Amino acid sequence: MTKGRIFSGMQPSGKFHLGNYMGALENWVKLQHEYECFFSIVDWHALTSSYEDTSKIPERIHEMALDWLSAGLDPEKNVIFVQSHVKEHAELHLLLSMMTPLSWLERVPTYKDKLQQLGIQGKDINTYGFLGYPELMTADIILYKADTIPVGEDQLPHLELSREIVRRFNNLYQPIFPEPKPSLSKSAILPGIDGRKMSKSYGNEIPFAASPDELRARIRLMITDPNRVKRTDLGNPDVCTVYTFHKIFNAEQSTEIAQSCRQATIGCVDCKKCLAEKMVNSLADIHVRRQELEKNPGRVKEILVFGGERARIVAAKTMDEVRQAMNLA
Amino acid sequence: MTKGRIFSGMQPSGKFHLGNYMGALENWVKLQHEYECFFSIVDWHALTSSYEDTSKIPERIHEMALDWLSAGLDPEKNVIFVQSHVKEHAELHLLLSMMTPLSWLERVPTYKDKLQQLGIQGKDINTYGFLGYPELMTADIILYKADTIPVGEDQLPHLELSREIVRRFNNLYQPIFPEPKPSLSKSAILPGIDGRKMSKSYGNEIPFAASPDELRARIRLMITDPNRVKRTDLGNPDVCTVYTFHKIFNAEQSTEIAQSCRQATIGCVDCKKCLAEKMVNSLADIHVRRQELEKNPGRVKEILVFGGERARIVAAKTMDEVRQAMNLA
Repeated sequence: MTKGRIFSGMQPSGKFHLGNYMGALENWVKLQHEYECFFSIVDWHALTSSYEDTSKIPERIHEMALDWLSAGLDPEKNVIFVQSHVKEHAELHLLLSMMTPLSWLERVPTYKDKLQQLGIQGKDINTYGFLGYPELMTADIILYKADTIPVGEDQLPHLELSREIVRRFNNLYQPIFPEPKPSLSKSAILPGIDGRKMSKSYGNEIPFAASPDELRARIRLMITDPNRVKRTDLGNPDVCTVYTFHKIFNAEQSTEIAQSCRQATIGCVDCKKCLAEKMVNSLADIHVRRQELEKNPGRVKEILVFGGERARIVAAKTMDEVRQAMNLA
Repeated sequence: MTKGRIFSGMQPSGKFHLGNYMGALENWVKLQHEYECFFSIVDWHALTSSYEDTSKIPERIHEMALDWLSAGLDPEKNVIFVQSHVKEHAELHLLLSMMTPLSWLERVPTYKDKLQQLGIQGKDINTYGFLGYPELMTADIILYKADTIPVGEDQLPHLELSREIVRRFNNLYQPIFPEPKPSLSKSAILPGIDGRKMSKSYGNEIPFAASPDELRARIRLMITDPNRVKRTDLGNPDVCTVYTFHKIFNAEQSTEIAQSCRQATIGCVDCKKCLAEKMVNSLADIHVRRQELEKNPGRVKEILVFGGERARIVAAKTMDEVRQAMNLA
């Protein structure tokens, strides 16, 4: 018996870094032991913000599958698949669109924010499809009758909308769908190497695919306490990015590290070396798995094909029920 | 060699009357000899205005197929199918939605009009799907690479939007789609039996499926010149609905009829009888075909299944090209 069924997806945006891993994927790896999980690389969603240049989509899908598998998602235990391989997502999206008041979508708090934010970056995404983003997300979730959705706080309004759409469908036609409930993940927020939010656009990210040597190189560039100029200056770990990382990857030694920093008994170079070895160790399994998978791109492709087939079986069954409930062929 | 490829569709709204036949279907029957035609019963479109009660959709699809086949559409020559049987319509609609500016849809002149009009009737159709109506229509058309679209004046703005979407797609990705051109049909406008626009909601319609006796009964109820009270009163054919029908169904005798009416040498009862027999005659083939088909509902179903299969072959080929152009799987 599992606790329920999970659906979750990520856009293949080609920016997967250690912050993304800690924010969501690490949680998925835990959840796979408790729930029946559908994890989807949502390539159609990626079109909402990057319809103008789709040339990198195939390679980004492959990269994302590598990220997930190397993180430890088990392709036998979970259904791991690409959204566009399962056409039923588009059909259900269309059917839901017919009964979803326009105002529900217009009122999603993140809608205008994101439009503006990407507008500043020079991206014009004020499209019909972008407005329908939460509608497609709802179709993704309920196509598998998922009842539990791991989300961050920022996604709660989307999920609330999904629940409203589900209630409306169940009420208008037949009570086919469970109302998906949020499972808030409380994961550590990993800053970038300069202490700001980790983001590829800031150039401060640690790639999730970094090799041990690349990892060491990124850690050497980390910003420490700016007032500790000389080795003998006393440090303040509370303003040091390296220390933030120690708290996450080296929790058992972090109190000692903080003390040594304040007393200047450890220098920043050694402190970084210590962190680097801890991180290399804790990510060693991931690194090994990635090396194996990179040797065998055909295997990754097979896994996605296999996942698509498994997803389609569940999706087709749901669509049969939907069509019957709506009197459609 | 045909003149090109046509796509056209009708919603199975269950209101098919003689006015609809003269407005569009009669034209299709002619076009089938000149073009390669895809005629679709667009049941997904019907959801835009009637998502709340879908119980009559199956019977309305069957009725519409009966209407089309009895009118003389040849199911071997044309591809006659139900939209929802070809899931590619939903997939292409979703992909087009990603690159269609919201403002293009909001600015379609008929959009706000129709919202208001149906709002007065107590129908709330301000949904995401209703806004996307012209997007779905575009997907319908270009999925078959149709280059010629028979339309009325009122649909020209929809088609102009389809042409804009096609240009945008061809420009962003690859030039896959022809720009669909309108073919304006100049068909006679048949009034209802009370002289107003023929509409089931006015109760003034002549059902397309009317038997000869039903046809005669409807014609007996037609409104004539209200100033011609007695048989001996001189009539004015210009304000007489019966005369409007004579001009369409009895063109060769209409001058004579007008004269007899003005001179009161023919009475309204006889004038109606004369019209009725002309109409019964000109619709005789249609009536016979319908009787045959009504005996064999399984045959109608088979025709739609067969049409769906033929449509899917073309649709699948187009979608292969679309996915390749957009770098999707």
